[in-house]
Amino acid sequence: MVISQRAIEVQASPIRKLMPYANDAKKKGIKVYHLNIGQPDIETPQVMIDAYRNFDDKIVAYGPSQGLDEYRQVLVKYFGKLGIPLKIDDILVTVAGSEACIFAMFATCNHGDEIIVPEPFYTNYNGFATMAGVNLVPLTTYAETGFELPEREIIEAHITNKTKAIMICNPGNPTGTVYTRKELEMLGDIAIKNKLFLIADEVYREFVYEGMRSISVLELKGCEQLAIVCDSISKRYSACGARVGCIVSRNQELMGAVLKFAQARLCPPTIDQLAAAASEYLPENYLTDVMNEYNKRRNFVYEELKKINGIVCVKPKGAFYIIAKLPIEDAEDFTIWLLNNYNVNNETIMLSPAEGFYATAGLGKSEVRIAYILNEEDLKKAMAIFVSGLEEYRQLKKNQ
Amino acid sequence: MVISQRAIEVQASPIRKLMPYANDAKKKGIKVYHLNIGQPDIETPQVMIDAYRNFDDKIVAYGPSQGLDEYRQVLVKYFGKLGIPLKIDDILVTVAGSEACIFAMFATCNHGDEIIVPEPFYTNYNGFATMAGVNLVPLTTYAETGFELPEREIIEAHITNKTKAIMICNPGNPTGTVYTRKELEMLGDIAIKNKLFLIADEVYREFVYEGMRSISVLELKGCEQLAIVCDSISKRYSACGARVGCIVSRNQELMGAVLKFAQARLCPPTIDQLAAAASEYLPENYLTDVMNEYNKRRNFVYEELKKINGIVCVKPKGAFYIIAKLPIEDAEDFTIWLLNNYNVNNETIMLSPAEGFYATAGLGKSEVRIAYILNEEDLKKAMAIFVSGLEEYRQLKKNQ
Repeated sequence: MVISQRAIEVQASPIRKLMPYANDAKKKGIKVYHLNIGQPDIETPQVMIDAYRNFDDKIVAYGPSQGLDEYRQVLVKYFGKLGIPLKIDDILVTVAGSEACIFAMFATCNHGDEIIVPEPFYTNYNGFATMAGVNLVPLTTYAETGFELPEREIIEAHITNKTKAIMICNPGNPTGTVYTRKELEMLGDIAIKNKLFLIADEVYREFVYEGMRSISVLELKGCEQLAIVCDSISKRYSACGARVGCIVSRNQELMGAVLKFAQARLCPPTIDQLAAAASEYLPENYLTDVMNEYNKRRNFVYEELKKINGIVCVKPKGAFYIIAKLPIEDAEDFTIWLLNNYNVNNETIMLSPAEGFYATAGLGKSEVRIAYILNEEDLKKAMAIFVSGLEEYRQLKKNQ
Repeated sequence: MVISQRAIEVQASPIRKLMPYANDAKKKGIKVYHLNIGQPDIETPQVMIDAYRNFDDKIVAYGPSQGLDEYRQVLVKYFGKLGIPLKIDDILVTVAGSEACIFAMFATCNHGDEIIVPEPFYTNYNGFATMAGVNLVPLTTYAETGFELPEREIIEAHITNKTKAIMICNPGNPTGTVYTRKELEMLGDIAIKNKLFLIADEVYREFVYEGMRSISVLELKGCEQLAIVCDSISKRYSACGARVGCIVSRNQELMGAVLKFAQARLCPPTIDQLAAAASEYLPENYLTDVMNEYNKRRNFVYEELKKINGIVCVKPKGAFYIIAKLPIEDAEDFTIWLLNNYNVNNETIMLSPAEGFYATAGLGKSEVRIAYILNEEDLKKAMAIFVSGLEEYRQLKKNQ
């Protein structure tokens, strides 16, 4: 017996695939600062931790396939405060944002259909697309212009009779780009005119800087029936391990279909939903405080990067990632070299080579994604290693 | 824009689809005993509840995609005690048994491939198959013979050049059937000869009666590379809402592929895995006690059913389900009638019509699945309502 072709082809996580090098470094006694993963060091709010600690039912029982009503009500209130009125049945709780994305693909696409996605994009979309048999059609954006969307004509040129949806991540992972209202309205209009769904992964919604506001596709006029949001508490409340997210749409037929997929896997985890529901009791300024903390980190990392000669990097407006185009040829080689051959006082860093975030072969080879999820002190050490490491690496290459 | 064809076609859960009738009955003040769902009333072990209550990290963080090492080690020990030696990398922790089944399908089948499944089968396999684009080819078994497997020739006649696996549920949901070593060795031999994977959903492993032992496909000689087990703590420890399961195989290539699918969805819930890991501290007799409790319930339900004239029901040997072929034409009509029109002292019951467990159209129309997951007292009342309700329904039909 042989495993399936899709099992052979499904992409290994480019974020996690270099982990063996990091593990080798750690075995040699070297401390590794992880700038490669989106696991924040911000504490999960105590009120949510307490929900686990206060659980006192006798049975950890199944919940409804669409999620616990009490948590869905909390989500209705949450979106209401954002100025997005929803009914409870517009929301289905998922096993984190991952399952929301998978359900969105299953519900909009048949095997062989296409979804247009601006690249670079969150690499796990590749895995979801392989599962769903969907072809992701990349719409290339560039570091030089801060990964803004191309002209309407260029986007529309990507539409075929197989296209079922446009999928965006806003604020963007891995780019940190926040789309303007104008960009979103253009996408909405393209979707309306071409009868496409508009899927938005908005898990970084609260992390936008410089007074910008992240606009949800749920706010776009005329897009009520085609807007689908994938959401999660993982980043918002630094609760990545709770695996609680949701899929949101006002399209009843779509949500009916999503419910059937959800019934097949029975329900999301019960107690984790109680923890998510406890977010209701967070103080009003909780998310602003977290945003301010990330903003400080963003400013610091950006200022450090700017000092590097030949770097291309537009200051990102959201999420907690920066993509930097480095004055080197092969960012993966640089990443491995940092782990294998470089350290400052027995400390080094791990980056995400950005090539894995592009679907178009050959793009992003000299780019890295930096997640600014460490506290300021660690970030200072990490960025110093980055700057000195890059200098030494370039010298080395020059002398080869 | 239109939703996908698979979203239109994916089966609504036949176990959950009649819930609106139960909800209507409840609104009228009628108590409904649920014999239709597999949510046991056995308490989750306190040591596992305590794992939630004792959580004291500051961050609910991502775990590894393959599951927490400490929990995988517990699983190695668990399988070791069953006489199944495994390495830690033979096990990948999943979001309950559901995800284990989905991963097994993705890893063994391409879109359009076939899996042979004895019917009646757990209906959610239909949803997983729709997601994976897999065609389930039913192998009909019969209430009259206790749903034992047909002859080898009949099974082999179902194999085509699209067949990639045989999938069984053992002990069986919804049948309660426990396959003999002879049956399993026959399946193993068919799989070897025809280069198929042998996928076994073994989540009811511990619930076998009359001194029988449930044999895992992992124990079959010569099947080391083709045996895949889908497992879960949902039923074993009455922790359905924890959503922790695992997929097990000694086939390294297959597990490598499963890991890539698992990386796309990042990780299973973290604290729920800590609860699952706490099962290590359960007393040796814990599962025997639970099994004895279910055995009492099984004996009671079976004795009650036997009293009914014209019923077809072979005493099941495992799990906590009985399929009964009733002397009526339409078990769904009977189920709805019980909820709409029948009660004893303002109490009624909800059954699962078994037609939804068959893939072959027209089969199972007069059959129901009863889950004996209620305590003895409730079960007594529920079965009395069943017996008197059936009597009255038959009179009604006779007079129509």
